[in-house]
Amino acid sequence: MSSHTESRFAADVYADRLERAVQLMREAHLDALLVTPGPDLHYLIGSAAQSFERLTCLVITSDKATPSVVIPKLELASLADSAVAELGLQVLDWVDGTDPYQLVKSSLHVGSRVAVTDVMPALHLLPLAESFSGLPVSATPVLRELRMIKDAAEIDALRRAGAAIDRVHARMGEWLRAGRTEAEVGRDIADAIVAEGHTEAAFVIVGAGEHGADPHHDVSDRRIEPGDVVVVDIGGPVAPGYYSDSTRTYVLGEPAPQVAERIAELERAQAAAVAAVRPGARAEDVDAAARKPLTAAGLGDAFVHRTGHGIGLSVHEEPYIVGGNQLELRPGMAFSVEPGIYFRGEWGARIEDIVVVTEDGCESMNQRPHGLTVL
Amino acid sequence: MSSHTESRFAADVYADRLERAVQLMREAHLDALLVTPGPDLHYLIGSAAQSFERLTCLVITSDKATPSVVIPKLELASLADSAVAELGLQVLDWVDGTDPYQLVKSSLHVGSRVAVTDVMPALHLLPLAESFSGLPVSATPVLRELRMIKDAAEIDALRRAGAAIDRVHARMGEWLRAGRTEAEVGRDIADAIVAEGHTEAAFVIVGAGEHGADPHHDVSDRRIEPGDVVVVDIGGPVAPGYYSDSTRTYVLGEPAPQVAERIAELERAQAAAVAAVRPGARAEDVDAAARKPLTAAGLGDAFVHRTGHGIGLSVHEEPYIVGGNQLELRPGMAFSVEPGIYFRGEWGARIEDIVVVTEDGCESMNQRPHGLTVL
Repeated sequence: MSSHTESRFAADVYADRLERAVQLMREAHLDALLVTPGPDLHYLIGSAAQSFERLTCLVITSDKATPSVVIPKLELASLADSAVAELGLQVLDWVDGTDPYQLVKSSLHVGSRVAVTDVMPALHLLPLAESFSGLPVSATPVLRELRMIKDAAEIDALRRAGAAIDRVHARMGEWLRAGRTEAEVGRDIADAIVAEGHTEAAFVIVGAGEHGADPHHDVSDRRIEPGDVVVVDIGGPVAPGYYSDSTRTYVLGEPAPQVAERIAELERAQAAAVAAVRPGARAEDVDAAARKPLTAAGLGDAFVHRTGHGIGLSVHEEPYIVGGNQLELRPGMAFSVEPGIYFRGEWGARIEDIVVVTEDGCESMNQRPHGLTVL
Repeated sequence: MSSHTESRFAADVYADRLERAVQLMREAHLDALLVTPGPDLHYLIGSAAQSFERLTCLVITSDKATPSVVIPKLELASLADSAVAELGLQVLDWVDGTDPYQLVKSSLHVGSRVAVTDVMPALHLLPLAESFSGLPVSATPVLRELRMIKDAAEIDALRRAGAAIDRVHARMGEWLRAGRTEAEVGRDIADAIVAEGHTEAAFVIVGAGEHGADPHHDVSDRRIEPGDVVVVDIGGPVAPGYYSDSTRTYVLGEPAPQVAERIAELERAQAAAVAAVRPGARAEDVDAAARKPLTAAGLGDAFVHRTGHGIGLSVHEEPYIVGGNQLELRPGMAFSVEPGIYFRGEWGARIEDIVVVTEDGCESMNQRPHGLTVL
């Protein structure tokens, strides 16, 4: 469903990322990095390939200049959008009935210390691992140093994603009306997510009334009623693959005073957390900054999840903004700040922006009003 | 985006599947089966959960009556649609900051022989595998005996899926017109896939002219022109999760004689392969039955992929209809029969039905005319 416009950055961006990945591999004493389709592959060579059952795998070795790509002959065309040709990578294609794992193994030395992308499925990992020296390790400790710090082009993509999802929230009154089901509203939102510039609608949560109390509700056939508090959490990727993710809470008609008060507390907590984002602060500090005012207001138990997650070529990635994460924030890190309050069987609310750490604070990708919006 | 209607079968269906899984595990001398979200989980407990980053895992041990489900507290609500409560499974929930892998390990004995679902990502497999005795094995050899043979309710779902996608193909003339782009046509098809009864449009290939020569093309901004041969390969799931997958080839205006002749050969090859499907035939026999007439017509080299793939709760599963697969077909097996011919830089064609093996042959889930449809 995707058009091929701006499907990736210029090839030198990927050449640089590959070079830095090899350097980080050497520092971690790794001999090889195996990357099947997913955000790591997208990041390293600009390929949005989604192959699952037939092995596609980027093989980077620390002792060799040119990485290779093992790929089914049938899916060679999927490389056209990537930087593989311009980077001069070695392409090793295979056909049904031959053993693709042997192609990977032939690029490795016996006893290689191997790291694999987190998304590699057991389907491929198990036959590959037979030839390694012991269990492979996760590639994330190596790649997170690259993927966590967004460069200017990536931040620009996140800005475009944020502006696109803001335009969808701005139009919410067109769709979110009493008498319609969450699913009907969700379909309209999904269409608007694409119409406003995303390549697809990746997720649409419309949680009305008691459904808003489930942070991971999606949509249902429940009809929206006058007075309902409705959590709307939506997003999708914009070219070349960077995600938006923004939540606002709406109410159909005037809210009960207690609802309005509690959501005002939530708005203050979200603002406090955003204000805590700066280089040198720790991820857990941002989480604490959201949690403290809610706890003071007696709402601590209602905030049942972490404050945020990194975002980029995947919706959830490092850094995670969660208690116990002592990671120091650095310029270029991008993540959500999304405290919420949930009252089981009654209602819920969440406010979510994506922020990018700057030299002296942060820039928000989302500009819509944060408080309860009355429709 | 899914409504919750008919999201699963009755609980006794899953109770029976779990019991048979344990029996097959014992025969394979396995101590434990670990199943993260995906088609195996859907099959075993009726849960369509899609959790990735936070561990959700069904733990079945061969020495214990009651399997358990490890799940983030935040995602407990996702079990509501599953059979977990009715089955009386043990639910072990966990919160951010605690170790979910320990919950799995605590259910296993030291040195357990463990099988894992093929879709389990390295993210979860690596931390779990540390505690196993050696590498785990794939659960597929155990579960395929169950998943490959569809029961009456599953075949009914595949029939409904086939009828729904047939209705979409029947309406192709509404959308597939000269001057429109593949992507525009694809969006209309995707809407119709949902409108005709699927819970989502899982894939939409509109391959016009030279794009039809790439079996894995999706859509692009290429405009459809008079005279184009267009491959349309579409499908999605119907409740409770069973997929349609059907390809037909269209032409805008009268085709060139050579095109019409070659597609007539393809139609004969597809019919010959369907005619070869019966209990006792081997998967490779069906592949050969499609390949033989094409080779005789000088089109053998143009048929660059296998003849088909199993289908059910996933789009691609066992049995694979491919040369070298000596698996004997049995009643209840469901798979695609989809030979194609591809002329790089020029055009391509493919004809695809889903068939289910019966006592004396097969039943096709798709009833649309097979030959080239002139629009």
